[in-house]
Amino acid sequence: MNADPLARVRVSFSKQGLMATLGATLGDISPGAVEIVLRPNPAISQQHGFVHGGAVSAIADSAAGYAAMSLMSVGISVLTTEFKINFVAPAAGERIIARGRVVKAGRTLTLTQTDVFAETGGQEKLIALLTATMMSIAGREGMDE
Amino acid sequence: MNADPLARVRVSFSKQGLMATLGATLGDISPGAVEIVLRPNPAISQQHGFVHGGAVSAIADSAAGYAAMSLMSVGISVLTTEFKINFVAPAAGERIIARGRVVKAGRTLTLTQTDVFAETGGQEKLIALLTATMMSIAGREGMDE
Amino acid sequence: MNADPLARVRVSFSKQGLMATLGATLGDISPGAVEIVLRPNPAISQQHGFVHGGAVSAIADSAAGYAAMSLMSVGISVLTTEFKINFVAPAAGERIIARGRVVKAGRTLTLTQTDVFAETGGQEKLIALLTATMMSIAGREGMDE
Amino acid sequence: MNADPLARVRVSFSKQGLMATLGATLGDISPGAVEIVLRPNPAISQQHGFVHGGAVSAIADSAAGYAAMSLMSVGISVLTTEFKINFVAPAAGERIIARGRVVKAGRTLTLTQTDVFAETGGQEKLIALLTATMMSIAGREGMDE
Repeated sequence: MNADPLARVRVSFSKQGLMATLGATLGDISPGAVEIVLRPNPAISQQHGFVHGGAVSAIADSAAGYAAMSLMSVGISVLTTEFKINFVAPAAGERIIARGRVVKAGRTLTLTQTDVFAETGGQEKLIALLTATMMSIAGREGMDE
Repeated sequence: MNADPLARVRVSFSKQGLMATLGATLGDISPGAVEIVLRPNPAISQQHGFVHGGAVSAIADSAAGYAAMSLMSVGISVLTTEFKINFVAPAAGERIIARGRVVKAGRTLTLTQTDVFAETGGQEKLIALLTATMMSIAGREGMDE
Repeated sequence: MNADPLARVRVSFSKQGLMATLGATLGDISPGAVEIVLRPNPAISQQHGFVHGGAVSAIADSAAGYAAMSLMSVGISVLTTEFKINFVAPAAGERIIARGRVVKAGRTLTLTQTDVFAETGGQEKLIALLTATMMSIAGREGMDE
Repeated sequence: MNADPLARVRVSFSKQGLMATLGATLGDISPGAVEIVLRPNPAISQQHGFVHGGAVSAIADSAAGYAAMSLMSVGISVLTTEFKINFVAPAAGERIIARGRVVKAGRTLTLTQTDVFAETGGQEKLIALLTATMMSIAGREGMDE
């Protein structure tokens, strides 16, 4: 077990098979704020060629969960209990960047928010907004990541 | 263009790169109700080995969208404007089955709901519940699928 | 303290000042299912004369919370941690009826759903759909209602 | 009809019977941002004496809707199609202040967010976070407020 929460975020992220399958990578991470990046490509598309809302949701949810986890003590795991996502523009561009942050950390429940941007030519545009409730789970073997 | 909405659902589904990447397949489909199935495996996992909530969300969102599309006239496309998903049990088992249906079809907006089940040994258990708003888009070239 | 959960629901409802202010009344209640009724009138209207979405949300949230509470042991209180509501038709008619039910009861969190109907001439029409997460709180003095 | 959107917000707010019934008042308003204030009292309480989540939701929803309306042309009306609210602390204090703002204005749909604070002794504390989709409706007689 690693006492550094950011190190635990990195280890946990590397264990999420879905993130590797989507080609998602960790961006900047700091206590309470985690970035996940996706590069649009046909393997993660919907029927019109844009990035599928499900792929956008997946990185937005993970960014939110890791933002919460980045503030947790060792031995505490994080589960998403619910999220809502609003899509405001098509997910297209060079990179899709999900920036998760903690809005309010609680003992059992933590409220998080992720803003998702599409980046093209160095310009960012908001494409989606997610709010999620994360639940802290203590003391389950192998669940601290 | 195909006048049969269920045929259009099948064509559109086959164009969603993400569904192929996740290994998702169409199950039963009928007007207003669409099933999408996922087989748990490491490529779609989160850090504890369960199916990632993002993968569950992706099939639940697609099932909801195709349920809406299955009631649309030719030339009308469907976009998800928002969804919320609540997770009530870990996504584990032999199959994850998302059953989307139309709650209320409107001219511009259609409300949909997807119940997601984990199936093990022929037994189904509810693991997630999604509600989503779908928007009808008319008359954009190549957007009818 | 009353060992009968339905009796505790009635007592708790009578203590919600907002329900009295809105003119809301309890309808049928049974374990896991609670109905709250509102009669449209100018005091609870929005600017076009329909019942305000906030009033619809209030009875839908309370119906969901009491559905959860109706399954709880004595000494356990219930708090709404989040809800989402979709509005699908104007809230107008003779009565607005919110029917809350438990979708999945958990130790800490309970998922609930409320369907809201407008009744006119004995006919019911769905006007809104709410999903909510309820949290069980044990052992706080005076919080069991 | 008034060409000034902020004036139309004030007129519309004065027509919401529910706001008067709750004792809610308009705070600061500017293009894209609207504040609504509530003073905790037994008439808007839940069973433990805090302000009822339904009352908090009502002012948060109205603040979001008026933030959207404050950017609309004359003759355009605004309807809430859905909102989600997360509650992070009890609604208690001297004043409950809902601050709605437009996140992304679109032709048909506008995404809004409201942060709700409880103020005590000049200190503010976040108690709830709402995100809502507003729909623009044009050309219905008497619906421009």
